Amino acid sequence: MLQVKLNPGEQIDILKNSEYKIIQDKKKFMFGIDAYLLADFAEIRNNELVADFGTGTGIIPLLLAKSRAEKIFALELKKESASMAERSIHLNNLSEKIKIIHGDIKNAATIFGKSSLNVVISNPPYLKISTGKLNPSDFKNIARHEVFCTLEDLFCSVSNVLKSHGRFYMIHRPERIDEIFKYSEKSNLQIKRLQFIHPFVYKEPTMVLVEARKNANSGVKILNPLVMYSKPSIYSDAICEIYKRL
Amino acid sequence: MLQVKLNPGEQIDILKNSEYKIIQDKKKFMFGIDAYLLADFAEIRNNELVADFGTGTGIIPLLLAKSRAEKIFALELKKESASMAERSIHLNNLSEKIKIIHGDIKNAATIFGKSSLNVVISNPPYLKISTGKLNPSDFKNIARHEVFCTLEDLFCSVSNVLKSHGRFYMIHRPERIDEIFKYSEKSNLQIKRLQFIHPFVYKEPTMVLVEARKNANSGVKILNPLVMYSKPSIYSDAICEIYKRL
Repeated sequence: MLQVKLNPGEQIDILKNSEYKIIQDKKKFMFGIDAYLLADFAEIRNNELVADFGTGTGIIPLLLAKSRAEKIFALELKKESASMAERSIHLNNLSEKIKIIHGDIKNAATIFGKSSLNVVISNPPYLKISTGKLNPSDFKNIARHEVFCTLEDLFCSVSNVLKSHGRFYMIHRPERIDEIFKYSEKSNLQIKRLQFIHPFVYKEPTMVLVEARKNANSGVKILNPLVMYSKPSIYSDAICEIYKRL
Repeated sequence: MLQVKLNPGEQIDILKNSEYKIIQDKKKFMFGIDAYLLADFAEIRNNELVADFGTGTGIIPLLLAKSRAEKIFALELKKESASMAERSIHLNNLSEKIKIIHGDIKNAATIFGKSSLNVVISNPPYLKISTGKLNPSDFKNIARHEVFCTLEDLFCSVSNVLKSHGRFYMIHRPERIDEIFKYSEKSNLQIKRLQFIHPFVYKEPTMVLVEARKNANSGVKILNPLVMYSKPSIYSDAICEIYKRL
């Protein structure tokens, strides 16, 4: 069995319905259900070159390890997170398929080359910086707030690295849908599919899944609502299906 | 009782849960549930000046006749439709509150004056002209296709006539949500609320209700899904409530 060194505070978790393991640190950042929703929403075709922008501890590439992608690149700015992701990939013997890159989303065109990728996936920070007083060394702040990369930066970088008709998959907050449309338009990424995620039927959505395509025609498909819970604390059938599929 | 003259093909219908009557012509255009959804979605405050752009036979102003608006102006390009609307207003003795204007949405700033209205409502044609071969004298074509007014024209005219922070309420097709964001952004109308209308729970939406505000800040509220039917042909409680409220 493959072994890795754990730093203080780090733990190894086994992914639900999977043989894969992931190294995380509770004090830093633990992945959430949004990673599963996004990985399931992304459509990966045969031999595609895929990148995950802001991979954190590498949950998205792990969930897509069995996809038909040729290669999955996972970009992470925080050295400690990139190290955890790197060791998780090694632990699962996935180094052939998944490559962790320690680098900045804003330099993506230099790292990958312009118009080089088929698919980019990102679970970016959901919140704008309102105070400007966030501590940028705090992992949770970086994961939640746009400390190092705004939504506009993200769309710009994604557009640069995607081939024409390449696809971008993202999960975000519904209240920012206006900015999502604005920056996608600005960067020639046409929103093609949206799915709103509601905690319960008849409740307002708390997340939205987005598919955009570079240089595509106008016209958006809004999917059926994805409902998280059938009763409090009980996942809906749709969510159970997603956990089974991944 | 007030009386009006009917032209050949015209009929008088009584609005559901209301004492009001409306003159329509089956061969031309009959109002649909979208008018009810839009009238219910629109929030009208005390003494506001309201306009309905493309009123057709005047269904929206009739549904809002009991609102707190100071005055409702209803603009219609087709002479025959404006005449039906005019006679319906007379028939219901509503000429004090509702004024039908025969005119073009694109001339709205001249008709109403710039920055003069608190609220504009519109149930515009949903479809772009793809062939260019539509007969512009066909009422159903004009009601369904952008023969005389595109979505961009509409947003531009609405923005011109609205006061700062004035509100625009519209119903449209979800697949055009990208253009709705694009033209609202271009015309300083910030989308503030969206509600998607689904035929059944777990089905894709077929319509979307939109509230935009002139010169407002960024940030959108996506409401809970509005579901039309609880079973085939049986309206949901939410729809029954809307019919009761109006």
